[in-house]
Amino acid sequence: MSHDRCLYSNMVALSPVLVLTYLSYFHSASCHATVPNMLNVHLVPHTHDDVGWLKTVDQYFYGGRNDIQHAGVQYILDSVVGQLLQNPERRFIYVETAFFYRWWKNQPPSMQKAVRQLVDQGRLEFVNGGWCMSDEATTHYSAVIDQMTLGLRFLNDTFGPCGRPRVAWHIDPFGHAREHASMFAQMGYDGFFFGRLDYQDRTNRIRTLEQELLWRASESLEPPYADLFTGILPNGYNPPKGFCWDQSCDDAPIMDDPDLEDYNVDDVVQRFAAAANSQAMAYKTKHIIMTMGSDFQYENANLWYKNLDKLIRYVNTRQANGSQINVLYSTPSCYLQELHRANLTWTLKTDDFFPYADDAHNFWTGYFTSRPALKRYERVSNGRLQTCNQLEVLGGPSSRKGPFGAGDSETLREAMAVAQHHDAVSGTEKQHVANDYARRLANGWQHCQVVVSNSLAALSGSSAGRIYCDNLNVSACPLTEASKKFSVNVYNSLARPVVWPVRLPVNASAYTVLDATGTPVDCQVSVCFRPQLVNYLPTYAQYFFNRVCVCVCVCVCQFVRATFDPATGLLDSLTNLETQQTIRLTQNFYWYNASDGKSSISDQASGAYIFRPNSSSPFIISCTAETESIQLQEVRQQFGPWVSQVIRLHSNSKALEMEWTVGPVPIADGLGKEVITRLDSSIASSGVFYTDSNGREVLRRKKDFRPTWDLRQTEPVAGNYYPINSRAYIKDDKDQLTVVTDRSQGGSSIHDGSLEIMLHRRLLHDDWRGVGEPLNEMSGVFPLGLVVRGRLLLSLTPPALAADAHRPLAQENVLQPLLSFTEGGPPPGSLLEFSGLQAALPPAVHLLTLSQWGQDSLLIRLEHQFQTKESKEHSVPFTVNLQVYTQYTHICTWEPLGTHIHTLFPSQSIINLFMVYLIGKDSVRRPTDNSYPMQGS
Amino acid sequence: MSHDRCLYSNMVALSPVLVLTYLSYFHSASCHATVPNMLNVHLVPHTHDDVGWLKTVDQYFYGGRNDIQHAGVQYILDSVVGQLLQNPERRFIYVETAFFYRWWKNQPPSMQKAVRQLVDQGRLEFVNGGWCMSDEATTHYSAVIDQMTLGLRFLNDTFGPCGRPRVAWHIDPFGHAREHASMFAQMGYDGFFFGRLDYQDRTNRIRTLEQELLWRASESLEPPYADLFTGILPNGYNPPKGFCWDQSCDDAPIMDDPDLEDYNVDDVVQRFAAAANSQAMAYKTKHIIMTMGSDFQYENANLWYKNLDKLIRYVNTRQANGSQINVLYSTPSCYLQELHRANLTWTLKTDDFFPYADDAHNFWTGYFTSRPALKRYERVSNGRLQTCNQLEVLGGPSSRKGPFGAGDSETLREAMAVAQHHDAVSGTEKQHVANDYARRLANGWQHCQVVVSNSLAALSGSSAGRIYCDNLNVSACPLTEASKKFSVNVYNSLARPVVWPVRLPVNASAYTVLDATGTPVDCQVSVCFRPQLVNYLPTYAQYFFNRVCVCVCVCVCQFVRATFDPATGLLDSLTNLETQQTIRLTQNFYWYNASDGKSSISDQASGAYIFRPNSSSPFIISCTAETESIQLQEVRQQFGPWVSQVIRLHSNSKALEMEWTVGPVPIADGLGKEVITRLDSSIASSGVFYTDSNGREVLRRKKDFRPTWDLRQTEPVAGNYYPINSRAYIKDDKDQLTVVTDRSQGGSSIHDGSLEIMLHRRLLHDDWRGVGEPLNEMSGVFPLGLVVRGRLLLSLTPPALAADAHRPLAQENVLQPLLSFTEGGPPPGSLLEFSGLQAALPPAVHLLTLSQWGQDSLLIRLEHQFQTKESKEHSVPFTVNLQVYTQYTHICTWEPLGTHIHTLFPSQSIINLFMVYLIGKDSVRRPTDNSYPMQGS
Repeated sequence: MSHDRCLYSNMVALSPVLVLTYLSYFHSASCHATVPNMLNVHLVPHTHDDVGWLKTVDQYFYGGRNDIQHAGVQYILDSVVGQLLQNPERRFIYVETAFFYRWWKNQPPSMQKAVRQLVDQGRLEFVNGGWCMSDEATTHYSAVIDQMTLGLRFLNDTFGPCGRPRVAWHIDPFGHAREHASMFAQMGYDGFFFGRLDYQDRTNRIRTLEQELLWRASESLEPPYADLFTGILPNGYNPPKGFCWDQSCDDAPIMDDPDLEDYNVDDVVQRFAAAANSQAMAYKTKHIIMTMGSDFQYENANLWYKNLDKLIRYVNTRQANGSQINVLYSTPSCYLQELHRANLTWTLKTDDFFPYADDAHNFWTGYFTSRPALKRYERVSNGRLQTCNQLEVLGGPSSRKGPFGAGDSETLREAMAVAQHHDAVSGTEKQHVANDYARRLANGWQHCQVVVSNSLAALSGSSAGRIYCDNLNVSACPLTEASKKFSVNVYNSLARPVVWPVRLPVNASAYTVLDATGTPVDCQVSVCFRPQLVNYLPTYAQYFFNRVCVCVCVCVCQFVRATFDPATGLLDSLTNLETQQTIRLTQNFYWYNASDGKSSISDQASGAYIFRPNSSSPFIISCTAETESIQLQEVRQQFGPWVSQVIRLHSNSKALEMEWTVGPVPIADGLGKEVITRLDSSIASSGVFYTDSNGREVLRRKKDFRPTWDLRQTEPVAGNYYPINSRAYIKDDKDQLTVVTDRSQGGSSIHDGSLEIMLHRRLLHDDWRGVGEPLNEMSGVFPLGLVVRGRLLLSLTPPALAADAHRPLAQENVLQPLLSFTEGGPPPGSLLEFSGLQAALPPAVHLLTLSQWGQDSLLIRLEHQFQTKESKEHSVPFTVNLQVYTQYTHICTWEPLGTHIHTLFPSQSIINLFMVYLIGKDSVRRPTDNSYPMQGS
Repeated sequence: MSHDRCLYSNMVALSPVLVLTYLSYFHSASCHATVPNMLNVHLVPHTHDDVGWLKTVDQYFYGGRNDIQHAGVQYILDSVVGQLLQNPERRFIYVETAFFYRWWKNQPPSMQKAVRQLVDQGRLEFVNGGWCMSDEATTHYSAVIDQMTLGLRFLNDTFGPCGRPRVAWHIDPFGHAREHASMFAQMGYDGFFFGRLDYQDRTNRIRTLEQELLWRASESLEPPYADLFTGILPNGYNPPKGFCWDQSCDDAPIMDDPDLEDYNVDDVVQRFAAAANSQAMAYKTKHIIMTMGSDFQYENANLWYKNLDKLIRYVNTRQANGSQINVLYSTPSCYLQELHRANLTWTLKTDDFFPYADDAHNFWTGYFTSRPALKRYERVSNGRLQTCNQLEVLGGPSSRKGPFGAGDSETLREAMAVAQHHDAVSGTEKQHVANDYARRLANGWQHCQVVVSNSLAALSGSSAGRIYCDNLNVSACPLTEASKKFSVNVYNSLARPVVWPVRLPVNASAYTVLDATGTPVDCQVSVCFRPQLVNYLPTYAQYFFNRVCVCVCVCVCQFVRATFDPATGLLDSLTNLETQQTIRLTQNFYWYNASDGKSSISDQASGAYIFRPNSSSPFIISCTAETESIQLQEVRQQFGPWVSQVIRLHSNSKALEMEWTVGPVPIADGLGKEVITRLDSSIASSGVFYTDSNGREVLRRKKDFRPTWDLRQTEPVAGNYYPINSRAYIKDDKDQLTVVTDRSQGGSSIHDGSLEIMLHRRLLHDDWRGVGEPLNEMSGVFPLGLVVRGRLLLSLTPPALAADAHRPLAQENVLQPLLSFTEGGPPPGSLLEFSGLQAALPPAVHLLTLSQWGQDSLLIRLEHQFQTKESKEHSVPFTVNLQVYTQYTHICTWEPLGTHIHTLFPSQSIINLFMVYLIGKDSVRRPTDNSYPMQGS
């Protein structure tokens, strides 16, 4: 049985056509039989194990800090496996590989064998299977793909085809991104289930029986490549009311001993029938699914299973008396199989599920911005991981063990995977957990630094000590500040040349800068006195108050002109000098007064999750800015003691940079503040604006409007906020103003011609969604609010040319060059410049992944980074001959398609996964299909 | 291994001498080896499962009402057994057979087999093994023996010798009665462990290394018959601080994966060593015991065992580095075995462990009286159960199935056993649980009524319908009130004649009363109007306000004279007319103002457990009583709207009856009240008074004094309270005033010549010992406080003759005659009088038990009911020839000693257990030793 089941699954997965056709479910012999013409209730025992939230991921694993929340995943897995072994009827699904992996490696071989058998027999089924259940609003697609790869690879390596998840399962994320659905479809999942959607949307779908639907998740990909069956679960991810039998619940167990008090079998059966019949009214088929579990449940699985066994027995016994209800243990894939057999047509959905509101004044749009520093650090770390991966490959085996010791990329890879969790980069975790995510990323980077140093030593031939100035964003780098002569090493992980401004803190007023060929580079030294910069590093205050000189390397070839109103000091207009287009453009900072929950309309406060301004009109921070102009390329604006901005033009860049610094947000007035930057332009945007989905395709947004139902708008601002992962824009026939962000943020266009982005939030109340803390981030040792700095890049173009600018701009922003520093000049004989590719990839083709896979294999992912129709020049197919780009191609074979020539379709969304097998020592290893979380054309 | 172990145990138990020698431990081959010269730490995994407390016993079993307290014993046993099966090193002890029995009968044969093996191998060990862990302050020895019998018999029938508990285990009761220790010693337990004792006592014993001791628990029995090794556990019954790994605890688990955060093995090992070394300082041997568990723990036993496995491994690994600590899984009997091997002499203790204080102002002496109505109902039910048992035997098989249907004694037996729990009759349970205990007793009595009716029908030859007027205590009996002609049937379960006043409500003014021989009986009809009696049955108020006549059958042969002060209406003097002794004796009612916890000295409030008066001077309710004299034999006193009393003399009785009625205790003044009756006499008691222990031997009490340590008295009243189960007295050379109670109560002698008994408590605050409710009992449907009625019997004698009076008086009070009523006169030809015995037993010999044991066997227990030295006439040995008393002896054999002639020693404490085997159908069954929870000489 087990082999049939998984071989079949395997065959499906290997067929490119079938993989991409959502209707072609694998047939599982391990599913329990259902009864035709009865209402079949699929009970799905499950646990939802946050990879960090109120506790850190390791605290959750062990069950440490149970004073915060009782939860210990090690015990959950112990317990569930024990219970599954006791009764072959029982089923369980498991989701988060980050936890499963930790558990697995502590098990003795006998237990591993028993679990393998459970998996082979379909009694333990993996669903989703990524390292975590990623957030959908604040993650970047590249990091999501990486974390899915990490989890799925473990499952494949450990369990083979039977361990392959067939169902994507995002029961908890707070809204759902179209790009996530697209990725899941392309990964070959048969279907997708989630629990949270807008309450109005839910009501509407219950009425129209559209809680199960077909999501067409890409405008670019030819259907059904990004089509995904999507099911909305009936009770979030909880059991129906009254049927929670976990240790954390208080519902009455089934008390079936007539000799004892409180015998309740009849009552339970009756209540269950009522719940099932009621649920069946909201779905189309004779099958319904009930999620029997919740957060960190099944730590003592016996409680659940003992009562579920009884429930099934007692409910089904009633069939002899005419009951039309049949209950069974099931899994999402077994449920999906029955839906497939029902042979219905599902409604098509092409937009996404943002924003998510659970009631009229309860929009979960705050977390789009919550913890902006963590969001930025996660984005930076993504770039570092890609660099680390690439240099690990390019430097060869000595990267991992070389002159700088032993390093690895796994630590950062796992830290990044954990950080994708929907209470990690989302900013909705407790403060100590946020600190733990950051610490993991920092620790991962420490491990990667060794890889990078080793690799660069191998590649350059110089083992000179390398310094990574991780505090450059606050102009701190001891080496450059102290040293009279130093070298800056720049590694660009993009597969094409890039010009990138480098700003370094130095202590002298004149430097000569030479490039690798010995040619002098244009460089500027300027002096700054900006006391507000130091607020969040007070221990270094003395140091910063000294005269710190900033060396800005810019060219003066200007594509852009910005003008400022001399009366206010505010931006006044923006001109694209190439296209000769100008718009009026003012920019200022505002704050919404966060609701404290004491209004008469609703007691909802703004918090880590929820954005609820007290009023739709934000307060202005200052009508004027004190300005200071440094050369032609830089204007510094001071809006008050806690908001400042530097607006810069860089040579060779067509974008205007706005570097904002916000904080410590004052709260002495007792008011929580949600700070935005707002661009007000002359563009006739007509209530329409655009935001990206996970850094890839862009979706059209319309104020006070939802594509699939008649919106009753109850929150004029929060109800119009959408996640911005990498860019947002407004446009009219003539002009498009695009903003590229350096992290995920929330934003909207509340007024025509206006685009606002929320930068920072400092709140004084919890919003009652579980985190139990106000989002009130502090700086270091002092009780000061956190200062956050970031960067927006503005691009003004005609709409038809916008993507040509913002696509590469956004990728450059995600994969910023890695700087490292060495004391003194270049060592004699060392290689000062090298390239990992033989030639630059075409502008439309992005090197998404280059990393070591096995000892003798690499993983390369290329993607077409343009969406369909957005660029006349680039939204066309490109054929890539990998032979042209890499030096290794003559000694390798290509998997899975056996060729090094690939056509990338005219769409950003197509991802191609290739395996490069270097000729190894003895044999060439051949991974099975599950190794490829990304399946392409 | 297992058979050796249990056969040996069996042999020991069969030898009468060894059974009674505490030093003769059985040797268990299943104990883990210890390491000589190291500190051996015995980890004892255990759960403490209250047989009702915050939830009912069945709610606890199932895990119902987990909103009140998370606890489900079915899951505990599921889980523990699963964990024991996983690792043969692990051990567990289980205590409460009431729960184990419920669980066992729901297990499939495969599981029963597995559990039998665990028991045979000593991996699952039963300790204590009674139906519950009885309360020690408020229980009567006869009910304790019954509940132990019920539990031990189940274990013996199910598991044979290996299931026999070797250790008594009273870890939670709130103070410890000497009579309990005596019973345990006589039952053949090897030792006794408990957790709670006075904090000063504990401090003293830690200092003197006397937390392990030899308790000589009887003044009457020849040592070592009532000697019992007694161990005081180090942390109550909890694990040492920081080592609680239950799901209900928050201590850090052992985090031993170096790849994860929070690795803490070194820290745990270090903390454990510190805890072990610190504990070892307070005990004499190289062995210490740690109780690893607590209330309702081990519902998810994996959490405990997984961490204990690691603890043992990591701590013992350190031995290689010189650590002198050896940790092992153990059980109390394995620990005891090591203490035995240590061959030390233990300090002797001859008093008891009352009262129990956990701090200076925190005396657990309130529960001696808490829930006086439940305490009375439990006592009444005990009498009913004995009657039911006896009539089941006397009526033969048709008692269980006869003209009145199917009845049984098991239901009441189990209800009584459950009611012995230390949160049942103690009064320290939540209100709804108290209601459940009462309901169980009432239900049990319903089952018994059928037995009684069937039996009496068989014995009398009349199947006339029988009515049991259960509300006679409030003068309600529809049959007697409505009927013109009715019969009263009286069953006396004592083994000797008794005269007992019968008071019936009737509706006419003249009745003829005839006895069984047709002889007229002297009878009085009087009328009463006592509105306060109806307060707690308001729905019947109208009915009671009618003229209710009370028929009091009394003789006028007066042994006693009481005089009253005409000015105050209070009792003035008491005279024994036989001995011509008179004392001055006043009596009045007072109330202590219960502390509300708002004092500056301590925040302890009076509550269900704790008695803490705000002041040592109680408030008087009224300095005078309105009195009404009914004939010569009865004076009715009214002390105000909520306190009244009837003082009666009965013919043929040497006792003065004081029937008190208290309630509803007013609380409109916001003051909790603890109501006492106080007798103030001319007896020169010199600070000494006497109270009984569980209704048997009497202990001397001295005000502000403890026999084994220098008491620092901090609570002048509460710190001098002791439990009174059946009697208390004060005396001087000439006079002894003995009070016999009708239920367990608390009492003291705060002033010389004075004896006070707490009758009722109505409190407004919780006392923070877990019950979470103020002890504020209500009556029926109205929000009125509970009215309680009770009876004290006073006896004035010379000290030397006191026991001759109070011993039989107390037994008559415990085993009151059962009345039943039939409409009309006696059916023709029916037997109107019969006796179950051929002759009355001698005055000193009490028939403790007569009940059906098996289909063809009976259980008879006789006891010598006098303590040594208390009666010149009766404190001597008696030889009983059972042939003389029973009609069945010619067709039976006697077990275990094979003779029907037995000498009962001159001591109350000797209990003799005999088995009577009637000649059955096919064979004579022969129970094994464990069938006899009571082992005698």
